[in-house]
Amino acid sequence: MSHPKRVYLAGPDVFLPNAVQIGSRKKALCQEHGFIGLFPFDNEVPKGAPGRVDRLIFEANVAMMHEADLGIFNLTPFRGPSADAGTVFELGLLAGLRKPLFGYTNVAAPLLARVDGAVQRPDGGWQDADGWAIEDFGNADNLMIDSCLARQGCGLVRIDAGGKLDDLDGFRMCLRMAADAVAAGSRKRARAVG
Amino acid sequence: MSHPKRVYLAGPDVFLPNAVQIGSRKKALCQEHGFIGLFPFDNEVPKGAPGRVDRLIFEANVAMMHEADLGIFNLTPFRGPSADAGTVFELGLLAGLRKPLFGYTNVAAPLLARVDGAVQRPDGGWQDADGWAIEDFGNADNLMIDSCLARQGCGLVRIDAGGKLDDLDGFRMCLRMAADAVAAGSRKRARAVG
Repeated sequence: MSHPKRVYLAGPDVFLPNAVQIGSRKKALCQEHGFIGLFPFDNEVPKGAPGRVDRLIFEANVAMMHEADLGIFNLTPFRGPSADAGTVFELGLLAGLRKPLFGYTNVAAPLLARVDGAVQRPDGGWQDADGWAIEDFGNADNLMIDSCLARQGCGLVRIDAGGKLDDLDGFRMCLRMAADAVAAGSRKRARAVG
Repeated sequence: MSHPKRVYLAGPDVFLPNAVQIGSRKKALCQEHGFIGLFPFDNEVPKGAPGRVDRLIFEANVAMMHEADLGIFNLTPFRGPSADAGTVFELGLLAGLRKPLFGYTNVAAPLLARVDGAVQRPDGGWQDADGWAIEDFGNADNLMIDSCLARQGCGLVRIDAGGKLDDLDGFRMCLRMAADAVAAGSRKRARAVG
């Protein structure tokens, strides 16, 4: 029996009015799948702590990410066509730390369909109203995000939930994939020592 | 005489119509400061290469980031109040790889001033029209981004250039800071062996 894996729960969930409930719900779902959920409650830095609150939250989140065995990312678009910037930073950081990563987005449509004023160029490429190129690979977001998760094996889970930030179907799918990956890893280790 | 440091040049510059020229200009400025610039030309994947082009670009960019000694990031807002998602992913990745990082944004105003429909809550906090919290730390972007760069020592350089994506004043400032950091490191090493 190995110790339960710790899952870093990244996402813009912390900005929602019901952040505390979402965190509790996600942690409970983690437990059902044999995981320990680590939720970055931005509001938990004690009032009156020395130093800038934002720097303390950063340090606490980074420490939590180092502590985590894997990460599950809510990459639903947030204030624009792409995922929340803080969440994307954390995706990169955990990729750099070589931790297994899973992610979901609660829109099914590709990035190209979500950029306002997209027009096709004579060469077939796409640009927005400012003339800035829009990627046309069918990805849900910037190719670095989708490709990072594709490289991990499972890809970015796309749920048709109208961009609702707190829909947890994609999160549940990620948990199942993570549990499968952990079980497959355990079987592999068992064979290696068998 | 040590070998010139390689600088990964991250930013939404690759999406601009004049991406090639910006890349050349940035690489020339790198050379003037004693650096070699590595610019992720998304368009350089040869046509007809086997595999998905987006995955090839991802792998090429990741390889370039591993090769780099440090990174300079254009974190100017891109299609929304935050920086380009691909750039932010790369910031996290290079932070995870523990490389020295420098960044600039071509807007001076804080994130809070750039989110549409921001309203103050009775408790003093801020939210957008959807009721989602907006950070109020005076940062240029999500606290993970500003804090990451603050922790590196120089902070996120904010230039009052109206969000113009290809203004290079901030880039030049980052280059000077990077050159100073490299020189300070060399002096430190020289003292250590002196």
